Amino acid sequence: MREVAIIGIGQTPVDEHWDKSLKELAGEALLAALFDAGRESAESLFIGNMLSGILSKQENIGGLISDWIGLPGMEAEKVEAACGSGAAALRAGLMAVSSGEVDSALVLGVEKMTESLPMETTEALATAADADYESAQGLSFVAINALVMQLYIHTYGWKHTDFAPFSINAHANALHNPFARLHEAITEKDYINARMVAEPINLLDASPTGDGAAAALLVPADSIAPDKRQVKIIGSASATDTIAIHSRKDPLWLSAAEKSVRKAYDQAGVGPEDIDFFEVHDAFSIMSVLSLEACGFAERGQGPKLGVNGDITITGRIPITTRGGLKARGHPVGATGMYQVVEAVQQLRGEANPTQVEHPRIGLTQNIGGSGATIITHILKAG
Amino acid sequence: MREVAIIGIGQTPVDEHWDKSLKELAGEALLAALFDAGRESAESLFIGNMLSGILSKQENIGGLISDWIGLPGMEAEKVEAACGSGAAALRAGLMAVSSGEVDSALVLGVEKMTESLPMETTEALATAADADYESAQGLSFVAINALVMQLYIHTYGWKHTDFAPFSINAHANALHNPFARLHEAITEKDYINARMVAEPINLLDASPTGDGAAAALLVPADSIAPDKRQVKIIGSASATDTIAIHSRKDPLWLSAAEKSVRKAYDQAGVGPEDIDFFEVHDAFSIMSVLSLEACGFAERGQGPKLGVNGDITITGRIPITTRGGLKARGHPVGATGMYQVVEAVQQLRGEANPTQVEHPRIGLTQNIGGSGATIITHILKAG
Repeated sequence: MREVAIIGIGQTPVDEHWDKSLKELAGEALLAALFDAGRESAESLFIGNMLSGILSKQENIGGLISDWIGLPGMEAEKVEAACGSGAAALRAGLMAVSSGEVDSALVLGVEKMTESLPMETTEALATAADADYESAQGLSFVAINALVMQLYIHTYGWKHTDFAPFSINAHANALHNPFARLHEAITEKDYINARMVAEPINLLDASPTGDGAAAALLVPADSIAPDKRQVKIIGSASATDTIAIHSRKDPLWLSAAEKSVRKAYDQAGVGPEDIDFFEVHDAFSIMSVLSLEACGFAERGQGPKLGVNGDITITGRIPITTRGGLKARGHPVGATGMYQVVEAVQQLRGEANPTQVEHPRIGLTQNIGGSGATIITHILKAG
Repeated sequence: MREVAIIGIGQTPVDEHWDKSLKELAGEALLAALFDAGRESAESLFIGNMLSGILSKQENIGGLISDWIGLPGMEAEKVEAACGSGAAALRAGLMAVSSGEVDSALVLGVEKMTESLPMETTEALATAADADYESAQGLSFVAINALVMQLYIHTYGWKHTDFAPFSINAHANALHNPFARLHEAITEKDYINARMVAEPINLLDASPTGDGAAAALLVPADSIAPDKRQVKIIGSASATDTIAIHSRKDPLWLSAAEKSVRKAYDQAGVGPEDIDFFEVHDAFSIMSVLSLEACGFAERGQGPKLGVNGDITITGRIPITTRGGLKARGHPVGATGMYQVVEAVQQLRGEANPTQVEHPRIGLTQNIGGSGATIITHILKAG
């Protein structure tokens, strides 16, 4: 199995891009990644996307996008794992290169969400949950997460305000990220007074969706001269859990996160103590807490402590959402996993000022599809 | 790169399965494939599916299906390339195993189409074409193929009836395939008198859609004792073309078919003369002709000759659609690519009576997404 390196990254700002279509967003990120790598083409393209068929009435986007970027003959397919689509595409690209099937692969996460009405988007997002036993009963995604957060607070005895540091940290880190959707520092008071969405989840617990695209170019590590700007993928694993929350023995434990991170730790030969920062899937603040616990950074039920103690800030023990996370960079669902990877590469290259983690060597990214049904973990290492 | 073998196959009949949901169809095929291989689980699951989000309001089917078959922790993702999704999933599974990332992978093609109204299905299928420049102009899929067939007849001087052998052959081959949707022999007279759909495409030029699932279990070839029932994947390649027909220099040439088959021939070290049968993507009879030409079995513009001469029958020079093809086995879009593979394995194992090709050694399968925008080719070899 060949080691694989990321040699180029590109992204568009996460925003309401009313003037740009799915393929235009995709093209911007892909051409930026090629330019960043100093290349003009790649053999294959793997696209993480969740909603193009439902919201843009467009499937078969492999052919559409490869044509649009001027490489119409290349291999190109879409990979879908709900909000985990981005990392699923990365894993597909990784396997294509590591297997020797291809010598270069572009990986793209892209989502175009402003082509539809808000109600349509909510319905489309609900396709990530169990259609028969969750969505059809009226459980929207925020409602599912609200049930989980409620149960967590009840079970472990935390207060809602104990979750505030996760949102405050994300917003602070996004402030100077030009690709972030929200550039607005928030305070604990803002958090407490935020409008309720689905109790106990308020507006500052929930991440905003948006349009966006993020991309990376992958090549075999031994095909290029060593370079500080290249980043190696040293761990990659994907695992699933029951799609419906009610089927899980413990709805407060992300078993797919634990399974995939353990495999990735083993591959990389590292443990939580070696991780210098963690791009966590904070679709809701409760998800950050559950991921941190499943990945070994906190005991079961003790995740909020990492926020309260300041461990999650840029200078803390385990900095998370270093460029704003889903909460403030924004959550263009199928693209999110690739935003996490692009941001991790920025950190490992030392290009993340003013929220640069000090001399990071190893970064962790974790991307979640549905309420923990599909979880994909990657471990990246500085070149 | 490790060589990969298919050691188990499973399928459901293609039909209107009003009593079965997407996950139930998937489960039947997957459990049959595991049973056929004498195994109880696999590490990963790659799912080819096009329409679950639109028609079943269900994405994230990796988690859904792995949970349903009793393997809720396994890696599981969906791959989408319109009607080429099945072969795209096979290629993903192949790369997962050949890279060494996993030691066993289930590959599934599944589609549930009877949950929606016929008009919804037509609209959903149109997402495989260019949403802005084709679908939005009212061009349905059959309309696009009708334009191509019209142009072909006009350019190369064939008559519509010259295409009859493709449908007659497919129907004859499906007659005793218990998994086929149509069990009805047809004559040239039936073909001539068939109801027009979109001139010149009539009902017997077009394949019927349906519900269905087909699956295979992949393992490294060197991990198992040599066995006549195992089939090796010796060639695999995917290529794209412009999604919109009007953007192509020559709309009568499947350049993505040519690109992908050439790569696959090179990998396998074979040429068209070595192929003992060809599971062709006969969504419309014109597509069989274009594929045969692009894959080197006929000169440009001469594809219909292979039908007229009887070359495509089971005892002919290059038997195609040996179990009925899309035309008569049926075309459950995202599942079709895996039906082709399952049928090729049946042929190579000698389990395809009464339409068994005589002692086949090497089989070709080709799966097409959209009107030739994504084309994926596999070459399989008897164990």
